[in-house]
Amino acid sequence: MKILLTNDDGIHAEGLWALEKVLSLKHEVFVIAPDKEQSGIGHAITLVRPLRVSRIQTNGGWGYAINGTPADCVKLAVAEVLKSRPDIVISGINHGLNVGVNLNYSGTVSAAKEAALMGIPAVAISQSPTPHHEYSFIADFVATLVVSVMDKGLPSGTFLNVNIPACPKEKIVGIRITRQGISPLQETFHKRIDPRNQVYYWQGVEKQVFDHELETDGGALCENYISITPVQCDMTDYKTMKQLKGWDIPLVILA
Amino acid sequence: MKILLTNDDGIHAEGLWALEKVLSLKHEVFVIAPDKEQSGIGHAITLVRPLRVSRIQTNGGWGYAINGTPADCVKLAVAEVLKSRPDIVISGINHGLNVGVNLNYSGTVSAAKEAALMGIPAVAISQSPTPHHEYSFIADFVATLVVSVMDKGLPSGTFLNVNIPACPKEKIVGIRITRQGISPLQETFHKRIDPRNQVYYWQGVEKQVFDHELETDGGALCENYISITPVQCDMTDYKTMKQLKGWDIPLVILA
Repeated sequence: MKILLTNDDGIHAEGLWALEKVLSLKHEVFVIAPDKEQSGIGHAITLVRPLRVSRIQTNGGWGYAINGTPADCVKLAVAEVLKSRPDIVISGINHGLNVGVNLNYSGTVSAAKEAALMGIPAVAISQSPTPHHEYSFIADFVATLVVSVMDKGLPSGTFLNVNIPACPKEKIVGIRITRQGISPLQETFHKRIDPRNQVYYWQGVEKQVFDHELETDGGALCENYISITPVQCDMTDYKTMKQLKGWDIPLVILA
Repeated sequence: MKILLTNDDGIHAEGLWALEKVLSLKHEVFVIAPDKEQSGIGHAITLVRPLRVSRIQTNGGWGYAINGTPADCVKLAVAEVLKSRPDIVISGINHGLNVGVNLNYSGTVSAAKEAALMGIPAVAISQSPTPHHEYSFIADFVATLVVSVMDKGLPSGTFLNVNIPACPKEKIVGIRITRQGISPLQETFHKRIDPRNQVYYWQGVEKQVFDHELETDGGALCENYISITPVQCDMTDYKTMKQLKGWDIPLVILA
């Protein structure tokens, strides 16, 4: 298989190359990733400045660094670097979970979503930061998951968002197929005063409250399960669509 | 009502102040918007540098400019500037349609999504660029739509994505409740050579192919309807969730 690997932690990230090491044993793997960390960048794309592609050697091996976002990397990889579509796009291993409402802010998840928008199968993979950082077993797991994905198939426009719990691998109790949790973040801004006596704000490292139900991504992780959530690109709320048709919104502008 | 107005075109944008002019006749309106254009920024949030809030006078009136993304503006507005939750968040009037897969890249839409994630009712409003720029009738329409939204209510986590067709207002034939189109963009990168003989790429202004069905956002706009799509924050693909439970993914790492 031809596999495109990317991430949002940047091309030098350990988790990216842990995946490359295992997947390249059996597949043709291309590493095309942002030249620096892009956490919180969401599904942004770069329109106001040009993009550069640099083939560089990292501690993990050779790859293509792009001065853009994870979504830029997938777009530019398919259009220019690879010159053809990969069989699958894998984004990660992210240093930090991507669950619940954080799916909106995650560059890791958005890279997989960008692939899904193009109809390419995709997996986003993230791990809760742990002191041990055992990336190799996660890479082994992704290698088997990829076989399942290609064998069984995913609907066009749907990708898998996978998260690995914080515990040592021996404590992982299994896999849960989950839904995205919806608990809001506890927003915090740190208000500070600069040396010119002007106010500025740091967006806080928000404490994410996980949904408790085991069928949510966060709930499964709290119980030491690997969480796999199928994520769809279609954002339409079909139930509300039916209700809206009964609203009779007045079209005053034509009056 | 207490209304928060924002956008992704920046605080000086004409469309933003056209809304303010009409909505402030009957409501308490706060304009809190990015200090510059943020097109393509998606749902990015700013984590690696501090945010500033500046109360400034624009051609349209007084507002708060923030050196961040549309999602930052909503977060910081609720947490620090307003010190309380607005009754509704309105994002726009965007200069350019936000339909189909472009919902992922749009800062306008993401500002409304950020509000919906907090459980605040929200509307994103965009117009196809036209030579005439008749924003005032759109503002009138939004003023009536807002009354409907507050009267009938939206489910928590769902907001409305509204688009106005390119035709003069007299040619608008009505309102369609639509789903998000899923046609992929036609990706183009413009490859150029800089004076140092190095390659760089501009991400092209992608020609968006609209879905033709009248029940899609793009299809309705092509027929001169105003398109209203209810968008939900929950990205779970519930149908695929059921299928995945039958996959029996091997958990090799525990072997």
